[in-house]
Amino acid sequence: MSHLIEKFLTSKVVFEGNLLNVFSDKVELPNGKEASREYIKHPGAVAVVPVTQEGNIVLVRQYRYPIGKALLEVPAGKLDKGEDPDTCALRELEEETGYVAEHIKKIASIYTTPGFTNEVIHLYIAENLTLSNPHPDEDEFLDVEVYSKEEIKTMIADGRINDAKSMLALLLAKI
Amino acid sequence: MSHLIEKFLTSKVVFEGNLLNVFSDKVELPNGKEASREYIKHPGAVAVVPVTQEGNIVLVRQYRYPIGKALLEVPAGKLDKGEDPDTCALRELEEETGYVAEHIKKIASIYTTPGFTNEVIHLYIAENLTLSNPHPDEDEFLDVEVYSKEEIKTMIADGRINDAKSMLALLLAKI
Repeated sequence: MSHLIEKFLTSKVVFEGNLLNVFSDKVELPNGKEASREYIKHPGAVAVVPVTQEGNIVLVRQYRYPIGKALLEVPAGKLDKGEDPDTCALRELEEETGYVAEHIKKIASIYTTPGFTNEVIHLYIAENLTLSNPHPDEDEFLDVEVYSKEEIKTMIADGRINDAKSMLALLLAKI
Repeated sequence: MSHLIEKFLTSKVVFEGNLLNVFSDKVELPNGKEASREYIKHPGAVAVVPVTQEGNIVLVRQYRYPIGKALLEVPAGKLDKGEDPDTCALRELEEETGYVAEHIKKIASIYTTPGFTNEVIHLYIAENLTLSNPHPDEDEFLDVEVYSKEEIKTMIADGRINDAKSMLALLLAKI
C-alpha cells in the first residue's frame, strides 16, 4: 500500500470552533504532485446498543440541526479528553438514557467518514441494564424510547432508523 | 418531536474550502436559550456494492489522509451538482473500478454523522458487471481488489473492513 501514501508537507488550522477544528494540509501525492487536504480533527466517540433485562432496545430521539430532523439513534457521545472508551460508553449510556449497565462489550471500531475527518466510533453492546436516572448534558434535549428487537429490525429495513453508526451498531450486535 | 426542535436564527460561513464548507449558525434551543451549531454542508454521496458475474465483490483500497491509513472500501463518491444519485452510482463504479453495471438497485440512504454534517450517502447494489476500463479522477490513487463473499464477511468481523458506509452497504446488501 506504500504506493498509495500521501506524504505530509505542512498543516494549517483554518477554523477553530467550539465543536469543529478544521485543518488544511499540503501533501505530496503518489505521483509527486502537491495537493491540499481539508479535514476535521475529532476526539473520537462511542455508541452503545443498550439491551434491557426484557430483551428490548433503548434508543434516543434527538434533533440533528445539520439535517433539520430528529433521528432515532443508539446512545452515543464524544470522548472527553483522555477518557477511556469503555468508561465513556458507560457514562453516555447513563447520562442519555438513565440506564446503568453492569458491563459492556466492545463490538467494533468504525471510521464514519474518513474522507474528511479522523472520527472513529467505538461500538458497544450493554446488557443487564438497571434503571437509574437520566441526566443529559445541559442543553441536550432527547427522548428515550424502548423498542422490541423485531421493531428495530423493521425500522432499519424501512429507513426509520437511518443514522449510520446506529444501524451498524444494531446490525453488528446481532440483536 | 416538536419539543426537540432547534429554531434557526442566523447563519454564517466560517470556512469556505475546496472540499469543506463550514457554517456556524445561531439557534434557539427548546428551552428558549441560544446556542451555536457548527456543521459542514455536503452535497451528498453514493456508495455501491459491486457483485461480479462470479458472485465476488469488488472493493477499492484508498489512502485516507485524515486517518493516515489506506482503507478497503466499496466504490463511492460525491454527487456532482444536480446529479441524480443513480447516475452517480453507475459513474463512480465505472470510474473507480472499471466495471460497468447493467442496472443498480438502491438499498438505503444513511446519515453518516448528523451531529456535524448533513451528508447523506445513498447505498446501492450493482450486479451482472462487465469489465471496461477504470479511469479514476486525476490525482485519485486506488487499488481495485476482488474478494469472495466469505472473505468479505471475515474482514467485516475481524475489523479489516472498518469504513462505516462500506460495512453498512455490504451488510444491508445481504451478500
